Amino acid sequence: MIIVFQPLASKQDIQHVVEKIEQLGFQAHISKGVERTIIGVIGDERKISREQFALLPKVENVIPILKPYKLVSREFKKENTVVNIEEVKVGGNEIIIMAGPCSVENEKQIISTAEAVKKGGAKILRGGAYKPRTSPYSFQGLGEDGLKLLRKAKEKTGLKIVTEVMESDDVDLVADYADLIQVGARNMQNTRLLRTLSKIKKPILLKRNFSATLLEFLMAAEYLLSGGNDQVILCERGIRTFVEYTRNTFDLNIIPVIKQLSHLPIIADPSHATGKSDLVMPMSRAAIACGADGLIIEVHPRPEKAESDGDQSIRFDSFSQLVKDIKPIATAVGRSVN
Amino acid sequence: MIIVFQPLASKQDIQHVVEKIEQLGFQAHISKGVERTIIGVIGDERKISREQFALLPKVENVIPILKPYKLVSREFKKENTVVNIEEVKVGGNEIIIMAGPCSVENEKQIISTAEAVKKGGAKILRGGAYKPRTSPYSFQGLGEDGLKLLRKAKEKTGLKIVTEVMESDDVDLVADYADLIQVGARNMQNTRLLRTLSKIKKPILLKRNFSATLLEFLMAAEYLLSGGNDQVILCERGIRTFVEYTRNTFDLNIIPVIKQLSHLPIIADPSHATGKSDLVMPMSRAAIACGADGLIIEVHPRPEKAESDGDQSIRFDSFSQLVKDIKPIATAVGRSVN
Amino acid sequence: MIIVFQPLASKQDIQHVVEKIEQLGFQAHISKGVERTIIGVIGDERKISREQFALLPKVENVIPILKPYKLVSREFKKENTVVNIEEVKVGGNEIIIMAGPCSVENEKQIISTAEAVKKGGAKILRGGAYKPRTSPYSFQGLGEDGLKLLRKAKEKTGLKIVTEVMESDDVDLVADYADLIQVGARNMQNTRLLRTLSKIKKPILLKRNFSATLLEFLMAAEYLLSGGNDQVILCERGIRTFVEYTRNTFDLNIIPVIKQLSHLPIIADPSHATGKSDLVMPMSRAAIACGADGLIIEVHPRPEKAESDGDQSIRFDSFSQLVKDIKPIATAVGRSVN
Amino acid sequence: MIIVFQPLASKQDIQHVVEKIEQLGFQAHISKGVERTIIGVIGDERKISREQFALLPKVENVIPILKPYKLVSREFKKENTVVNIEEVKVGGNEIIIMAGPCSVENEKQIISTAEAVKKGGAKILRGGAYKPRTSPYSFQGLGEDGLKLLRKAKEKTGLKIVTEVMESDDVDLVADYADLIQVGARNMQNTRLLRTLSKIKKPILLKRNFSATLLEFLMAAEYLLSGGNDQVILCERGIRTFVEYTRNTFDLNIIPVIKQLSHLPIIADPSHATGKSDLVMPMSRAAIACGADGLIIEVHPRPEKAESDGDQSIRFDSFSQLVKDIKPIATAVGRSVN
Repeated sequence: MIIVFQPLASKQDIQHVVEKIEQLGFQAHISKGVERTIIGVIGDERKISREQFALLPKVENVIPILKPYKLVSREFKKENTVVNIEEVKVGGNEIIIMAGPCSVENEKQIISTAEAVKKGGAKILRGGAYKPRTSPYSFQGLGEDGLKLLRKAKEKTGLKIVTEVMESDDVDLVADYADLIQVGARNMQNTRLLRTLSKIKKPILLKRNFSATLLEFLMAAEYLLSGGNDQVILCERGIRTFVEYTRNTFDLNIIPVIKQLSHLPIIADPSHATGKSDLVMPMSRAAIACGADGLIIEVHPRPEKAESDGDQSIRFDSFSQLVKDIKPIATAVGRSVN
Repeated sequence: MIIVFQPLASKQDIQHVVEKIEQLGFQAHISKGVERTIIGVIGDERKISREQFALLPKVENVIPILKPYKLVSREFKKENTVVNIEEVKVGGNEIIIMAGPCSVENEKQIISTAEAVKKGGAKILRGGAYKPRTSPYSFQGLGEDGLKLLRKAKEKTGLKIVTEVMESDDVDLVADYADLIQVGARNMQNTRLLRTLSKIKKPILLKRNFSATLLEFLMAAEYLLSGGNDQVILCERGIRTFVEYTRNTFDLNIIPVIKQLSHLPIIADPSHATGKSDLVMPMSRAAIACGADGLIIEVHPRPEKAESDGDQSIRFDSFSQLVKDIKPIATAVGRSVN
Repeated sequence: MIIVFQPLASKQDIQHVVEKIEQLGFQAHISKGVERTIIGVIGDERKISREQFALLPKVENVIPILKPYKLVSREFKKENTVVNIEEVKVGGNEIIIMAGPCSVENEKQIISTAEAVKKGGAKILRGGAYKPRTSPYSFQGLGEDGLKLLRKAKEKTGLKIVTEVMESDDVDLVADYADLIQVGARNMQNTRLLRTLSKIKKPILLKRNFSATLLEFLMAAEYLLSGGNDQVILCERGIRTFVEYTRNTFDLNIIPVIKQLSHLPIIADPSHATGKSDLVMPMSRAAIACGADGLIIEVHPRPEKAESDGDQSIRFDSFSQLVKDIKPIATAVGRSVN
Repeated sequence: MIIVFQPLASKQDIQHVVEKIEQLGFQAHISKGVERTIIGVIGDERKISREQFALLPKVENVIPILKPYKLVSREFKKENTVVNIEEVKVGGNEIIIMAGPCSVENEKQIISTAEAVKKGGAKILRGGAYKPRTSPYSFQGLGEDGLKLLRKAKEKTGLKIVTEVMESDDVDLVADYADLIQVGARNMQNTRLLRTLSKIKKPILLKRNFSATLLEFLMAAEYLLSGGNDQVILCERGIRTFVEYTRNTFDLNIIPVIKQLSHLPIIADPSHATGKSDLVMPMSRAAIACGADGLIIEVHPRPEKAESDGDQSIRFDSFSQLVKDIKPIATAVGRSVN
């Protein structure tokens, strides 16, 4: 931590800060510059808050040096984490594709979709049973009935299941049905839910909130790891910007950045990020090209009849095509699909 | 709802859409323009989704005409809603000021702050017992012990209490202690929590999420009203933009906009919005000048020792000054303080 | 400037950087922390670029301490700059109001508007002769004919004239007619134009670009001051964010921030910032409440007939009302109008 | 254009609007809905402004149907435009790579870079002679001397030259030296410059402004085409968002969107967009994967000594590697490099 003084700070102002640093058990290194004096605070700065110094007289700025996350960082763990969803491995050489409808609507819809996406190349079936909707008047999901239909689809196809949980109370129930539990973008900073999920033995798919900074995203994952669950997959699904031609702005740049800073795998969700079915194909290719470990794609037998997210869902044949198109890109970056 | 066709749409394409509209029990009004044909769909469009038409062949765009919110709208209810927090009224002529520390830390801190802000002119004491923090390593609040200290402060001062609830499970407990229950920015779209709160008989302070559009903000309130709780106060607390000199961008513009579109009261939180104690004073004045029904201000006896949000907390004397400064502004816009 | 090393930096890595610092004529203060070593560079860091160090082996980060602007800063000049537009003073105790149409359209329009806004309380007449329009098919302004009409309006009313210049070539011509020369938001970083304007003896109204950070805004002003023109008024006119209910997001927060960091006056443009005539009144009040030195308001005799910006222009009677409404706010903050 | 009335609009209100529509030579189609009446305006709406109706009594909203751009649209011209820079073709099957330093600094730097990027696979040499810099104290480019060095580099290597022009006055001079003239992001809406460039016979590289919407970007190109210059290449180079880990947010999503809406070629600039040399490689791959027609890459012999943009420049060997990495991606999407 570095403490920068205002130009007019007196000897006493500086001495006052030095004493406070030493009282806290840290060391102070003073550098007098041409215009300003700065102090380097030596010690584990995660144990002190910047406000303890920022509000002292004549202090202009306090600059943290250490990153506030630890367990998710590549400094802490060098090799890539591979998350095992039963035998499906996310974060290894293989690109993993998750696919399925936004919401589970009925048996025919989910079974036919499961069969189609399995044939197309997906390893994991997505489908929402509990849906966080903007409007109270919209379809809110089938709840446990939806979970039961997902289990049926798993039995028929062997696909693993990923589905969202919205509240701590539902964690045990959802964990009974799901192989991978999704934390939705709106709940990325629901710290209560994160703590509950940090105590269970299921892998977690943590989606980035629309307005999450890199730090907030990694700190949300740190909640999970610090509670004991290190089976965490991150997911980029678009941020909110001034741009209006996509539902959100798909921020693929975070993928190589996460790869540098963290050992956790990261996948991409072009369906929610762009909100337009005709952008899913090109942006899926781009996601793989810049290093994503997988994709999660909305697929629906008849998007125009979908209860939710029809605009961004693709049909069965488009999904098969998408996987075919991804393969040479995966090869080009030294990865494989299937 | 208006359906716009692509320039090359054929007679059959248009007929196909008309049939679908009529099957759903709506009427279709066709207008053939110079370049494009459009259809006006007559009927209550809230019952149909835009995707039902947007994905049909040769349809270029589907434009909703009606607003998706109803109960929160001024069209539904002309006169301003006044929320009664026991005898304190928010949304009437009087500007109501809520103040207190970010977190309840200990008895001395909360009691002394309660006494100071009451003397300064606050009617409601704020203080967090359950804190949603970015880092799992930060102070997470005192929990029920914090609630008990808030009750003690209420007994001493007569101030009403506003405090945050983070999960459905805690609603009954928090409602026991609080006079006004806060939904934090991170939980604005926690639809499960909103539904639980819509069933209780306590007023709600609903804070805008960092990245919430006007529509999302109003729809979150619609969850509360549609479930039966119409005692809702909105709160602007900053949005996430590219700007770096404030913690968030305090978007005061939403205040007069909400006043036009909705009958609900709206207050402003300059402490969280700006994140800097020396901006709290001028931006509080601005909030009142453009029509806010109240303020919520972070006050701490010694900000440099605060467990959280020290940077943006003001001291007792600054708070008294703030209320004094607000008064002539309130008068200038035909309102009163105290 | 502070140089932060990666955890694994060797003695040689550090020595290499120290030598480079000393070669450049600066001094290096080394602090070895628990996890990282940092070096404080002593000397006027404006003379070195951060890349000179940021790209050296094992350097993790380079943090500037000094601000890159100088002449515009309050450290450089303590007392407020007052800009004299003939006898009208911007930045003193009086709130100055500029008003007029977006574009000069014809004699009747500009003269009648000039008379109305003068009566209403304006001291300066705005009106565009050269218009930067999004579409090549839109009205682009009357050019010099527009300037002549502005002069006529000045002769009739005594109002000073503010109008935009778009290119260096036009500076002499526009300076002939204008008392205050506007640099529009789109040209805020047109460094060629800024350099030309820095050499003339007319005050400049510098509008903030839609996406300008605080630093970029101040550095644009620094271009003017460093070239020799210190008669500069800043103007906040809205930034681009995800928000859709206002044309831009009026970022009033920058006003008190500028007041802290710079001695230059700053005014606010609620017309362009909000894009809606019914928000101009409340947001004008807010701007004065948080410290703006003036307002610039779009006024048109018949907004529904305006060649540009009709949506955000107010009528004569609304303008008079606006000035009346501003007065008690100005008084409340210790300022005056008129 | 569709005019939506407020719920309480009377027969007269509607009749008043109908008359106005007919006076302008358009036809009105009225649809009375359950809550609101709407009017479809039949005729070429580009000839009327929405304000002409939006401000009339009881009008709630006016929704344009037609897009304001015409010449740049795919509706106007179906087949892709291929821009010929002498024999180098941008927008055809081949991916074109432009590379070179941010600024031309001296002969050795530009010649060695030209030779290296030519060997690596570039077809066009970039290099700034006129630099728009945030700070007046930064290096502003060598001016015409820089142009002369670019010509020398062209003579030595046969590479075509792309360089920026900042003002109308310089257009003839720059056109003398450049094969492709760049309009920088800060000048994207410098309509005076665009008009001048629309009259010359050189291809233009138009960079997207940091905060430009899709519409503004296409309308800037429309200025060029409407003035007579249809040799236009678009370039995505990052937008301003809340994100802090990249210099800007590289918005690759616009590439497939532009491909749908416009016939113009579009290339990507990962150097400026990300601002970090270690992101240039993965994001270049992503750009090609989602359909970019080319790349523009900052390359410098010794980035740590660069006068500008050292942080984002890559070395000669990295550039060669980048082109090698791009090739299989190009093949995967049916394109070629070289």
